[in-house]
Amino acid sequence: MGQQAAEQDIPQQGIPPLALRHLIRQGSFKKGTAGQANGCLQANLVVLPLDWARDFARFCLRNPTPCPVVGLSEPGSGRMPVLGQDLDIRTDVPKYNLYQDGKFVSELETLEECWGDDFVAFALGCSYTFEQALMDAGLSLRHIDQGLIVPMFRTNIKAVSAGRFSGNFVVSMRSFDPESVKRAAEITRAYPYSHGEPVHIGDPAEIGVSDINKPDFGDVIALEAGEIPAFWACGVTPQIVLEAARPPICIAHKPGHMLVSDVRDGEEAMAAWQTTNRQLIELGGS
Amino acid sequence: MGQQAAEQDIPQQGIPPLALRHLIRQGSFKKGTAGQANGCLQANLVVLPLDWARDFARFCLRNPTPCPVVGLSEPGSGRMPVLGQDLDIRTDVPKYNLYQDGKFVSELETLEECWGDDFVAFALGCSYTFEQALMDAGLSLRHIDQGLIVPMFRTNIKAVSAGRFSGNFVVSMRSFDPESVKRAAEITRAYPYSHGEPVHIGDPAEIGVSDINKPDFGDVIALEAGEIPAFWACGVTPQIVLEAARPPICIAHKPGHMLVSDVRDGEEAMAAWQTTNRQLIELGGS
Repeated sequence: MGQQAAEQDIPQQGIPPLALRHLIRQGSFKKGTAGQANGCLQANLVVLPLDWARDFARFCLRNPTPCPVVGLSEPGSGRMPVLGQDLDIRTDVPKYNLYQDGKFVSELETLEECWGDDFVAFALGCSYTFEQALMDAGLSLRHIDQGLIVPMFRTNIKAVSAGRFSGNFVVSMRSFDPESVKRAAEITRAYPYSHGEPVHIGDPAEIGVSDINKPDFGDVIALEAGEIPAFWACGVTPQIVLEAARPPICIAHKPGHMLVSDVRDGEEAMAAWQTTNRQLIELGGS
Repeated sequence: MGQQAAEQDIPQQGIPPLALRHLIRQGSFKKGTAGQANGCLQANLVVLPLDWARDFARFCLRNPTPCPVVGLSEPGSGRMPVLGQDLDIRTDVPKYNLYQDGKFVSELETLEECWGDDFVAFALGCSYTFEQALMDAGLSLRHIDQGLIVPMFRTNIKAVSAGRFSGNFVVSMRSFDPESVKRAAEITRAYPYSHGEPVHIGDPAEIGVSDINKPDFGDVIALEAGEIPAFWACGVTPQIVLEAARPPICIAHKPGHMLVSDVRDGEEAMAAWQTTNRQLIELGGS
């Protein structure tokens, strides 16, 4: 299926996941994946050598709220059967970031040249899932309405350490009227593989956020009168933890350029998360 | 099998789990369970009404290090097949503590009279497992050598909130020489259902512990020259979180008087933990 045909056929849903991965693999799609493959799980990517992957597996198991792992490869393999039969993380992500010793080195369009035979790939659930659920329920998300990046903050909430990995939670903020903030918490608790319910609602100072108009990442979005801020655990948490731990090599997706899976949000994604948790336990204890 | 026969037959291992539960059920064994059913998983007990149990399920899923759930009952049932076919948590724990609105009310020897048809029971892995693994590896644990209770401390490590449950980690401290502290961390990481590796090693101030000679719970155990303290997440964490949330009714085991399971430590216990995690996800999202 060509890109044009796909886009004409299903404009509302974006390109379906398998077709999108084929386009990416051929080098025909290099954009961000927001709005594509709607209804299917998109995931953040982290690739580490085996020795580091064992520590990271335990870090994710201990911190499932910021680090919900929905797919894991065998060492040296780019496959993640739980997320799709025809899926290879070495070729199927539009853009990658390569880090050495915790520092960004370069952007890549494929991992075929730099792949190591002990590399392990982690796919982590992201906020797209719960944001879609909120919008489906009629709640408006200001950063999306305004075309901005959600504001994110470093907090005083410590992640539970594992091996060489430690650090504090980063959270993303969305604000609502008092009724809607309750509904937002209730809706998102059904998506533990997508950060679940907020980790905090209300006074930002309680989680160490001193100025809500000075996010550490993303754009400034001011609170409107009567609104209450809600803070969700954020996938930037593992990124800053990885930077601080300085593994010799680490590969991540380029922000916004996600791994698109065949797994439908909801029960299918929940099952992928559960299956992956069992794999993480084996990897972390090995 | 009578108590005397059991104790004569296997003094090294304690009474085996099924025989011990039968003695407890008959009212013939009302002591602490330390040293009994060696090699089998013992567990802390928490019982809550269904509405509160849903929040607590999510709290445990978000905080698996202090709250590793290894068994879960269906609402209204005292059975936990994953931990033993002939097991009823309403009769098989030597002593229970009853709490109302977060306050201790009375000690019970059975839950048969106060059981509610929407009560849900949680069995949580405890430190006995990893302490046994440390001793099996030849490491000495001073609180055990001296017949004392391990020193426990409130920390500045926040648990991840879920619904009405929030609070900070409580940790238990064990100290070792520098070589042994590394080994202790490596050994315990294989037991994620028993708190896993330490959450912190070294300076107590980093986790908000100002005086290591003033534990919040347990006995004082001074550091000896050259020793490094290691801090493990502790099962007192859910207790203080439950007290703070003030559910109308909550039942726990009396400290030291645990639920003794048929599940052998190691792979069997790991499988029970994984199975229970899937049940928790269903309960928490319902």
